[in-house]
Amino acid sequence: MSKIPVGLIGVTGYTGMELVRLLARHPALELVRATSRAEAGKTLVELYPYLQGLGIGELSVTEPDAAALSGACRLVFLAVPHGAAMGYAAELLGAGLKVVDLSADFRLTDPGVYESWYGVEHRHPELLEQAVYGLPEFNAGRIKEATLVANPGCYPTSVILGLAPALAKGLIETDGIVADSKSGASGAGRKSQVGMLFCEVHDTFRAYNLGKHRHTPEIEQELSKIAGTDMMVSFNPHLLPVDRGILSTIYTKPVKSLTLDDVHNVYTTHYAQCPWVRVLPKGRLPETRFVRGTMFCDMGLVLDGRTGRLIVVTAIDNLCRGASGQALACANLMLGLPVEAGLDLAPLVP
Amino acid sequence: MSKIPVGLIGVTGYTGMELVRLLARHPALELVRATSRAEAGKTLVELYPYLQGLGIGELSVTEPDAAALSGACRLVFLAVPHGAAMGYAAELLGAGLKVVDLSADFRLTDPGVYESWYGVEHRHPELLEQAVYGLPEFNAGRIKEATLVANPGCYPTSVILGLAPALAKGLIETDGIVADSKSGASGAGRKSQVGMLFCEVHDTFRAYNLGKHRHTPEIEQELSKIAGTDMMVSFNPHLLPVDRGILSTIYTKPVKSLTLDDVHNVYTTHYAQCPWVRVLPKGRLPETRFVRGTMFCDMGLVLDGRTGRLIVVTAIDNLCRGASGQALACANLMLGLPVEAGLDLAPLVP
Amino acid sequence: MSKIPVGLIGVTGYTGMELVRLLARHPALELVRATSRAEAGKTLVELYPYLQGLGIGELSVTEPDAAALSGACRLVFLAVPHGAAMGYAAELLGAGLKVVDLSADFRLTDPGVYESWYGVEHRHPELLEQAVYGLPEFNAGRIKEATLVANPGCYPTSVILGLAPALAKGLIETDGIVADSKSGASGAGRKSQVGMLFCEVHDTFRAYNLGKHRHTPEIEQELSKIAGTDMMVSFNPHLLPVDRGILSTIYTKPVKSLTLDDVHNVYTTHYAQCPWVRVLPKGRLPETRFVRGTMFCDMGLVLDGRTGRLIVVTAIDNLCRGASGQALACANLMLGLPVEAGLDLAPLVP
Amino acid sequence: MSKIPVGLIGVTGYTGMELVRLLARHPALELVRATSRAEAGKTLVELYPYLQGLGIGELSVTEPDAAALSGACRLVFLAVPHGAAMGYAAELLGAGLKVVDLSADFRLTDPGVYESWYGVEHRHPELLEQAVYGLPEFNAGRIKEATLVANPGCYPTSVILGLAPALAKGLIETDGIVADSKSGASGAGRKSQVGMLFCEVHDTFRAYNLGKHRHTPEIEQELSKIAGTDMMVSFNPHLLPVDRGILSTIYTKPVKSLTLDDVHNVYTTHYAQCPWVRVLPKGRLPETRFVRGTMFCDMGLVLDGRTGRLIVVTAIDNLCRGASGQALACANLMLGLPVEAGLDLAPLVP
Repeated sequence: MSKIPVGLIGVTGYTGMELVRLLARHPALELVRATSRAEAGKTLVELYPYLQGLGIGELSVTEPDAAALSGACRLVFLAVPHGAAMGYAAELLGAGLKVVDLSADFRLTDPGVYESWYGVEHRHPELLEQAVYGLPEFNAGRIKEATLVANPGCYPTSVILGLAPALAKGLIETDGIVADSKSGASGAGRKSQVGMLFCEVHDTFRAYNLGKHRHTPEIEQELSKIAGTDMMVSFNPHLLPVDRGILSTIYTKPVKSLTLDDVHNVYTTHYAQCPWVRVLPKGRLPETRFVRGTMFCDMGLVLDGRTGRLIVVTAIDNLCRGASGQALACANLMLGLPVEAGLDLAPLVP
Repeated sequence: MSKIPVGLIGVTGYTGMELVRLLARHPALELVRATSRAEAGKTLVELYPYLQGLGIGELSVTEPDAAALSGACRLVFLAVPHGAAMGYAAELLGAGLKVVDLSADFRLTDPGVYESWYGVEHRHPELLEQAVYGLPEFNAGRIKEATLVANPGCYPTSVILGLAPALAKGLIETDGIVADSKSGASGAGRKSQVGMLFCEVHDTFRAYNLGKHRHTPEIEQELSKIAGTDMMVSFNPHLLPVDRGILSTIYTKPVKSLTLDDVHNVYTTHYAQCPWVRVLPKGRLPETRFVRGTMFCDMGLVLDGRTGRLIVVTAIDNLCRGASGQALACANLMLGLPVEAGLDLAPLVP
Repeated sequence: MSKIPVGLIGVTGYTGMELVRLLARHPALELVRATSRAEAGKTLVELYPYLQGLGIGELSVTEPDAAALSGACRLVFLAVPHGAAMGYAAELLGAGLKVVDLSADFRLTDPGVYESWYGVEHRHPELLEQAVYGLPEFNAGRIKEATLVANPGCYPTSVILGLAPALAKGLIETDGIVADSKSGASGAGRKSQVGMLFCEVHDTFRAYNLGKHRHTPEIEQELSKIAGTDMMVSFNPHLLPVDRGILSTIYTKPVKSLTLDDVHNVYTTHYAQCPWVRVLPKGRLPETRFVRGTMFCDMGLVLDGRTGRLIVVTAIDNLCRGASGQALACANLMLGLPVEAGLDLAPLVP
Repeated sequence: MSKIPVGLIGVTGYTGMELVRLLARHPALELVRATSRAEAGKTLVELYPYLQGLGIGELSVTEPDAAALSGACRLVFLAVPHGAAMGYAAELLGAGLKVVDLSADFRLTDPGVYESWYGVEHRHPELLEQAVYGLPEFNAGRIKEATLVANPGCYPTSVILGLAPALAKGLIETDGIVADSKSGASGAGRKSQVGMLFCEVHDTFRAYNLGKHRHTPEIEQELSKIAGTDMMVSFNPHLLPVDRGILSTIYTKPVKSLTLDDVHNVYTTHYAQCPWVRVLPKGRLPETRFVRGTMFCDMGLVLDGRTGRLIVVTAIDNLCRGASGQALACANLMLGLPVEAGLDLAPLVP
């Protein structure tokens, strides 16, 4: 059976690389176009020597060109920075392609919110209505019908999945939630910058953008939908000296007296049909290594009776689950494939 | 001028090693006894080859013996596990020595609280009253007069210093504080255990003991004194893949409307006479590498107007400031030396 | 189609864990028995929480028992220390099972050499003759027929693959070869020992066992066969602060004037039918991350005209290619499956 | 006593930062000028927040200007790239200043060799004769008299110190030596480049520039002087995922039968007056962490009787001993201070 041809705009970043890794072993999709202005003319294996022998390396990187892509592909992944993606999306949709955008350009339904957090005017607000937020656990039905999917951010994936059951069931106050998130360095992208050099990240730890990270409005928008009321979250990111992985420790207040059994039941029930969400046994807490290279979102629950808090800890791989793997899951759905095609991955431990 | 002789019980752990490092370059103290049941008979340099040429390596490790120590030393550091320290302290105090205990045995004034959190009966509750909590910024006067100092825990040092100004001035609610703390692996000690092997800690991140870490009652006891009211804290530790360093992100609620200038002024004023506490300029956040190997506690302040929170971020070196360096500062005070003797250290970056 | 049942003795080490990871996604083999004296009675997922949802975690760990294994399996992997494996092998072979031994017990054809390097008497020298050295690139035919495979050591895999073409073609002197090898920490196993704690390995680097590592005679035995003459190698291991990966830098002397083209041709020709050996383009050197989690052995060639040396650099994943993946490749062959079944893996970068 | 004023051209790289660290605690030198074209106008503490409270942070960074420096300083450190240093050196020497150049510009006595390895024409060959190679163990007398010191490279320091005793005593063949060196990432400098991002260096290992690194002619020049004959070395660098540290494993062939006692005696005798060179006890091998932050060069000796090799393993801190600390030692000598002033440092372990 011939594979479905797909394209990728932006192959030089970590999310582009991760898409290539996953597509190299995908049973039903074939990467037939990969673009980069900076590297056009090279083959993929010249860029990434580790692709030798994987059957994908001989593909030549081209300039991004909507016409060429539309003739060759059925769906295109956009792995370019926010601000750059929206234009490509408009062109590609116009040419009849399906699009999965890994940037933030179509995640926020209100273009004013987008502009105030990202500092960029939205040039295609007319597309926002048709964009579907690509969290497969919640939106699978709509993703299947979508032509434009806004792939969730890495931090939002970890926070939204962690809070959804408790909010949906009204277990916790919507006010006063704090998410203390820690991300591996691949989340900062593959731009050359002194602050992300090995010697600036290794053997150290720092907080950054406390209370003002751009993923905040995305988290709040999606949680507000789930909670059925407008809510804010204090979202606070940190930089871990690891390659991959986000661990979010989320502090909430129960609205009433709960037992850990109650909460655990709510979570396992909520995610009973979601094989990628692993609610851990009571007493267990997640670790980023246990989801390395996979689509899993691991989740640990702590009920602290002393201080009256429900603490939810989630772990994902920011590149796979938090970006490229999730984009691929959406593409699977959009193309009529099983959501897990090519994503049935086991974690690499250690 | 001859140096003051001091002893060390427990030389095989990371805090013992850190004391040896600092004493090797101390201008006024000399390590004349170092003990370890397991390693008695070896010289220090046989244990720690990196001591060669530092003028301290030829000291022979001996069995711990109070009589021998009392004849040779004026002060002894206890770097042994909780439960083991209390007995040594009683013996050494009885022999007329001053004692700085790095364990938790004398930190909690209420032996019942000790027993409920540590699961060990306190065999010397009669000593608790004379024990002084060794945080030099707050208790310098009492430390100078003390014969027994309970050296603060590493996490408590990072949390208490971060909250003290705001609590002392009544800026924040005493209820609902969350401390999300992240520590390097040396905090787990130098015991052989599978969970702390390189391949179990490297390139990963995990939470542990959420809401039930033994440093919790110590934090609450000291903060309650500062706040003038009993208070609880939700304290939640995590394990970082770094050697040294604790970063605590502490979430609080202001009792009234504040500006960042207000808060920054309170903090800089509070610590104006404390050279080891560095309140960073507004907009800066601490990083563990910037305090590596030193006594500094760096502190960043964030006022998040959206969610109505004051976030305090602190960074210390858990082995130096959070353990052995702090113990040495206390010893300096107890022996009539300037608090900073031998501790005027510059951070090793990178 | 039903899968072929296999067993694993020794599930608590890193090689056992890696076998479980690979078997969890194997299309034709099913792990039906996993044993550990220490952990018998638990399920795999209780031991390894990251197995949740992989369809393999519910298997219960049992005591190692040859009779039970022989009734349930067609082949058994031995992932226990040298010295312990030989007894299991004898029992299991006696019960009619095929065996792949990941330890060193059957690698050395001369039991005297085994005893002098390993300090253990060989209790089953009668089995040595039937044991096949499990390097699939060279011995595929014999492995297919074997009932007992001695799986190669991790370092030997990296050195033998790197030198084989040059020795087979007589390009280099058999005398004076130096292999300077660097291994990730998983190579030291999962025993609790102070020297392998995170804080003893992280952010540092050391040499160990120079000239006397136990993998030396294995390297020399296999290279002597390839070269057609007895030869010695100066083999010198080092410990890297990484989880996985061996990089060997191998220094040789050409027997005559060569061009890099000559050497490159010899290597690419030699490995033309070996998809897991990737001879890199001239000018490229391997990196351990580029083989992470895979069966690849990457190889870079440098001809240093100034000093008259041919330098071969190889990189493998010590756990996958250097241990469990290679064992699985052998098992595939022994069971009539394609060698690459379940091993068609793409590297996880970053 | 007032301190001697010194200046630093190039404060934004890791060697500049390390000089600032060391000068911040130097008892007799004071940094009075620090320059950077990119950062002129800022204070040091604005650049490096970790300098707060160290008494050096308020110094303002200025444009590099020889006249201003000559009026204010007695000696200037050049911590700028090769090619840029030579012009500054000429100007500053012309203005009557002493100069320690941390670049390669004055290390090679033959400008033709410089040009062929560095690809840059030497614009001040007239200064080469007066430049003294700044290895304090060997050239202390000449350094004291020098106005221009060429500070040794990091790799050369590790290799030259390791081979000097054996070559000086004629114990080993001058032909066929291989140095396999591994360096931490700070050796690559603080330039923004994708290849040195955290995610490109962490948890991986690679060789680079085998046989053609620019430090090769420097190593050969200095060893040839010691050996009394022209010699070549196969020098082969690798990149370690650590911040600081070089470990060199050096393979040599004895000219005659030797015992380890013989060799150890030669080494300990050779370095008897050199407190920074620590010849380890027989059987011990160095580790980079054991010299972290210090001037030590640790040295382990292995005599491999089987293969007839003497292996010397050395470890240094590439930033301190291999660059800025060594430059400071030279400055101490040039300014009439004890060589160890401000450099009596204990390693930070862990």
